[in-house]
Parts: sequence; structure tokens; C-alpha cells
Amino acid sequence: MASIYFTPGPAQLYPTVEKHLQKALDSQALSQSHRSQGFKDLYKRADAALKELFNLPASYAIYFTGSATEIWERSLQSLTANSSFHLVNGSFSGKYLEHAQWLGRKADAHQVPFGQGFDIAQVHIPGQAELIGIAQNETSSGVSTPVSDIHALKARYPEPLLSVDMVSGAPYAQLDFNLVDMAFFSVQKGFGLPAGLGVWLVNEKCLAKATSLQGQQYTGGHYSIASLHEFYQQFQTPCTPNVLAIYLLTHVVEDMLAKGIDVIRKETDAKADMVYSFLEESELFQPFVQEPAHRSPTVLVAEVKSRPASEVISKLKEQGLVLGSGYGKFKDQHVRIANFPAVSETDMDRLVKAMRLL
Amino acid sequence: MASIYFTPGPAQLYPTVEKHLQKALDSQALSQSHRSQGFKDLYKRADAALKELFNLPASYAIYFTGSATEIWERSLQSLTANSSFHLVNGSFSGKYLEHAQWLGRKADAHQVPFGQGFDIAQVHIPGQAELIGIAQNETSSGVSTPVSDIHALKARYPEPLLSVDMVSGAPYAQLDFNLVDMAFFSVQKGFGLPAGLGVWLVNEKCLAKATSLQGQQYTGGHYSIASLHEFYQQFQTPCTPNVLAIYLLTHVVEDMLAKGIDVIRKETDAKADMVYSFLEESELFQPFVQEPAHRSPTVLVAEVKSRPASEVISKLKEQGLVLGSGYGKFKDQHVRIANFPAVSETDMDRLVKAMRLL
Repeated sequence: MASIYFTPGPAQLYPTVEKHLQKALDSQALSQSHRSQGFKDLYKRADAALKELFNLPASYAIYFTGSATEIWERSLQSLTANSSFHLVNGSFSGKYLEHAQWLGRKADAHQVPFGQGFDIAQVHIPGQAELIGIAQNETSSGVSTPVSDIHALKARYPEPLLSVDMVSGAPYAQLDFNLVDMAFFSVQKGFGLPAGLGVWLVNEKCLAKATSLQGQQYTGGHYSIASLHEFYQQFQTPCTPNVLAIYLLTHVVEDMLAKGIDVIRKETDAKADMVYSFLEESELFQPFVQEPAHRSPTVLVAEVKSRPASEVISKLKEQGLVLGSGYGKFKDQHVRIANFPAVSETDMDRLVKAMRLL
Repeated sequence: MASIYFTPGPAQLYPTVEKHLQKALDSQALSQSHRSQGFKDLYKRADAALKELFNLPASYAIYFTGSATEIWERSLQSLTANSSFHLVNGSFSGKYLEHAQWLGRKADAHQVPFGQGFDIAQVHIPGQAELIGIAQNETSSGVSTPVSDIHALKARYPEPLLSVDMVSGAPYAQLDFNLVDMAFFSVQKGFGLPAGLGVWLVNEKCLAKATSLQGQQYTGGHYSIASLHEFYQQFQTPCTPNVLAIYLLTHVVEDMLAKGIDVIRKETDAKADMVYSFLEESELFQPFVQEPAHRSPTVLVAEVKSRPASEVISKLKEQGLVLGSGYGKFKDQHVRIANFPAVSETDMDRLVKAMRLL
């Protein structure tokens, strides 16, 4: 019998993926040239569906990359000449900072301990920062930054470009895209797709900044915003992209729109409440994140109190329930439970019941 | 009825792809973490199969990227501090040169007109070149550089790293990997897979050079050879890769090994001979590449003599035979016929018969 994957990515496939995959094969969409009208039509359809899902202003552009990780690098190359600022509360927000350091940028950070969120009033960003990086959902620790805090950060610092890593928060996180400048995610998390595609949402202010840096420094060459945008205007990509992933993303986003993103958000909240309520009252588990407002609704991290986490993971795996292990040094103390749209309320109920019986 | 794709990539899918895709879904391999033992086992298996297929010395490393295009950039970042040299005879070999220019390297080139190959004796490479880039098969013009010429180039210039773009020549091209330092390809051409994966074959000399440059310059950060190699030693990748493409590649390479790479090469030669013989005697077509020794066995380019190429392409498409159009400004004069392993002798025979009746 098939297992249910509660892993934080690669994750459970969205229920319609297999059907769309079959259709991609039957229609020979995967043999079609990425310079053909057929591909342009697909990209245009992806663009329209994603704009609707995220309620993007029409002026936004959407680019595809090989991974979200690549967008850390490309955004810094195309959008900063000297300095960036990072809000760091875990491994992934820390990696954005590391990319800036590798690229020789003056990279400052506001850091809080692993497992904590930010008090936006305490964040002080130096005037020269050209870009602020923040993770809306820190996949390593299960800490989420409420979108209202991200919007408040923009109100306090309107000038620097605000770049939001929503890798494990999309499409749940209801960002106001008038109040951020770019965001990005990969498809193997909340969209329930096979891995291998990064999606980059970029506003006009980013494009203007990228244009101003073009010719002044190495902005990413073929993979710079300037290059991506030039191709985007014809619904093309600089190099042959992961066409299958774009195909599946387009169809899954359309399925999500048909279901209703509000319904998906409500279901996500209900499933998250179910798990957190159980963790609060459990003898064996407790929520790792202390502050309820910072507990992620999409990647839930539980501390295992009196046993090695690996034992819990093994026992649940035997029952076809696959959890993620704790990140890095928390491997033996934490379990991570992805609460993505591909996981149904019935699945989550089954998991909670099984955890209760451990 | 399904069409047959003779397009130079994305191309006809290898006949076993659909079966392997179904198995990937059934085994839930696409939900599995890229940090799991299951993924490590897959990478290890891919590594062994590719080493056998290309007859790679054991010391070679194999890395995965988002595309072959990315390897132009990453190889220059990780392997050159100052200068590179490029043999240019078409758009794709020209793009490797462009990447070097974008990265601020002193990039020299030996250029010959579109449609021509190289006389290796005429190539003079300045002493400071750290890397020589050459396309074993120029997808834009249908010119192939015989592997013996590539080996001769190494004999004349043993010092610089020899980097071979075999994007549309693999796995047919029988390179002696003791006589080149790195090579790369993407999977949507000769391997008949959905697009979205670059494969990079790297020897110890490259690794040593990359190590020497580490800390001296930006070598590609997370995507540098140093980083790729650190992860490779555990059969891991720096970021979440296109797991599905790696899965399919592994299985298709194993199928190719079972069939025998020599058989595949012989079939490729027989199909190429069939097409070139027809082009030679045709009233409507002629081989674009004049010099028989430089005619590609894997991407065959034909000039259409008395009609627009688009008309020929449309008429064949109606019969379910999809050709590639000419590259760039040759769009209206050329057709490109990919002769990859996924195209059978029966398919090619059908195409030639249809072309004869035009």
C-alpha cells in the first residue's frame, strides 16, 4: 500500500499529478521544442494561473530557474552591487546570507536563535542595504513569519528591495505583493510536484534595479534578471527548462484555483490546528516553537520528549506514515510534519491518531 | 496517432521512459527526500551506469546541474581565473565563448564559418589559456568534430583543461576520457528524456584546479566544483535536484547498457548513412555540411533547395513526422533531423520515404 509523505519536500505528490503526467506523455508535450508556440502557450498559461493564485499585480514577471536555491544567488547578483541584509532564524534564511557573503557583498544580519521568530520592531537595517532577505517560512525550524510582520517590515524600510523566501510557505502564505518586491519558491513542497524547478516572482522595482546594474558587474549572465526578462517577454527561457515541471505546475495551479485558494488555506489551518492541539496535550511530543504566533502552519516541528526521534519515525513509517527528520543537529530530537495541500484532512487525522498510540 | 519527433531536443522520448516513469510514481520515489539513503543509492547507481556507458576512468566525478547551459558558466567560474580559449563554429560553441566574456575572462577564439569544421593543425592556442572549450557536436549547424581531432588537440595542448560540450553527441561520441578533462550534456537529446538536467563529467585535474582557485575568487558558491564535489562524495547534491530526471536517466542508461552502446553506435551510423545518402541524391535537399568527415551523425542538417523549409516541415508534420527547423537565420533554409537512439531504423526509413515523396 502506498505511504503518505509528510516530509517537508520532496513531499507527497498533489493528487492530480499522475493524471497530468499521463496527459503530458500522451500529448507528447515533453518532446516539443522549448522554442515552439506550444511551449510559449504553456508558459503564458502558467503565468496567468500563478498571477491569479498569488493575486499578483499585472506588472509582475515570473521566471523559472533550476531550483529556489539558485534564486538566492541570482537575486543577489542581479539586484545588489554592494550590500544586503538578512533576517536569520534558521538554516535556510542563513543560507541566503551565506550566498551574499560568497558573492563578496557586505552582508549584515539580524539573527535570532533557532526556533524563534522575529520582533520586527527590534530589527534595524542600515541605510545602505539594497536588498532585505527574509524567509516567510523557515523549513528547518518550523518558524513562520506572519505576513503582517513582512508587510510591517516594508512599511518601516520602504527603500530596499524586499525579497521573500516562501519556499515552504507557498501557496498558503497570503502575501500582499504590493508590499514585497520579489518572492520565490520551489515546486516540490506546497505544490506537491516532483523536484527540479524554482519559481521567481519579480516586480518592476526589481527589474529597474537589475537594469541599472547591467553592464556594471556580473549580474548572472544568461541567468540574470535582464536575460530572464528578455526571454520572458516572449514567454521563453534563456536555456531549456524543466518543461515537465512547468507543465505539471500549470495544471496543479489550475486545479488549486478550481478548488479555491481560500478553501486550501482553511483546510491548511484546520489540519495545523489538529496537529498543534495534539502536540500541546501529548506526553511524548511538544511543539518545538514556543510562541504560537510563530508556529508554522505548513511545516510543523515537534520535539520528541522521551525517545530518539528516529524510533518514532521508524514506527510511523511501518504504518505508511513518513515524517521528516529534524534538521541538522536536531535530527535526533525533532520530527517535521509537512502540512501541504497534497495531505488531506483524513491523512492528517490518521497521522495524529497513530502518533497518539505511540 | 503519436508523432515521431526528429527534433534536436527536446526530442523523441526513449521507448522505455513511460514504463520507468510509471515505476517512479508507483514506488513513490518522487516523494523521497533528496537527503535519504534511497536518493544516495539512486545517485550511486547513476554514477556507476554512466561510468560504464562512457568508459570513464574511476577517478572521474559526475555532478548534476539544472541544465548543460549552466555548466558553461560553472566550469568557467570554477576552472579559470583569467583566460579561456574557444573553438567556435556555430551558435552553441559561440555561447560558451560569450559566457567567458560575460564573466570577464580574457577569452580568445578560433572561429570558422557556420557549417564548417576545424582543421586542428590550424588552431593556435595562447600559452595562458587555462581551459579550451570545444563542441563535439554543434547542434545549430550539424557539424561534428571527430573525436580523433579532439584527442589530437589534447596531444598538441596537454596543459589547458579540455572541456568538451557533447550536448547533442552523447552517448554516441566515443571520447577517450583519458584525453579530455571534462565533458557535459543535457538529457533531452541523445538520452531521450524530459528536459531539465545537466550532467557534468569531471576528472581529477579539474578538481585540483578548482581546489586551487577556491577562496581566490567567486567559483560559483553553492554550485562550484568544490561544493558539488563535497556533496558528490556522499552521493548528494548541494540543492534539491531534478530527482525524476536522475531516476529516468539511471534507468535509460541501464537499458542502453543492456542493449550495448556498440549496437547503439552502429544503429546511429546506419540511420545517418541512410539520411545522408538520400540527401546527396535528392533534388529538393542537400547536406548543409560540405565536408563529409564533419557531418554530424546525431544532428543532420539539410538545406532545402527550392522551397521554404517551413513548407517542408508542415507537410511532414501532417504525416506525424516532426523535424527541427533551421537554427537562427537559417530557419527558412534548413531542416534539422535528430538521429538519437530513441529514433528507430523503421522511423528513419519512414522519414526518408516521406521526404522522397515531397
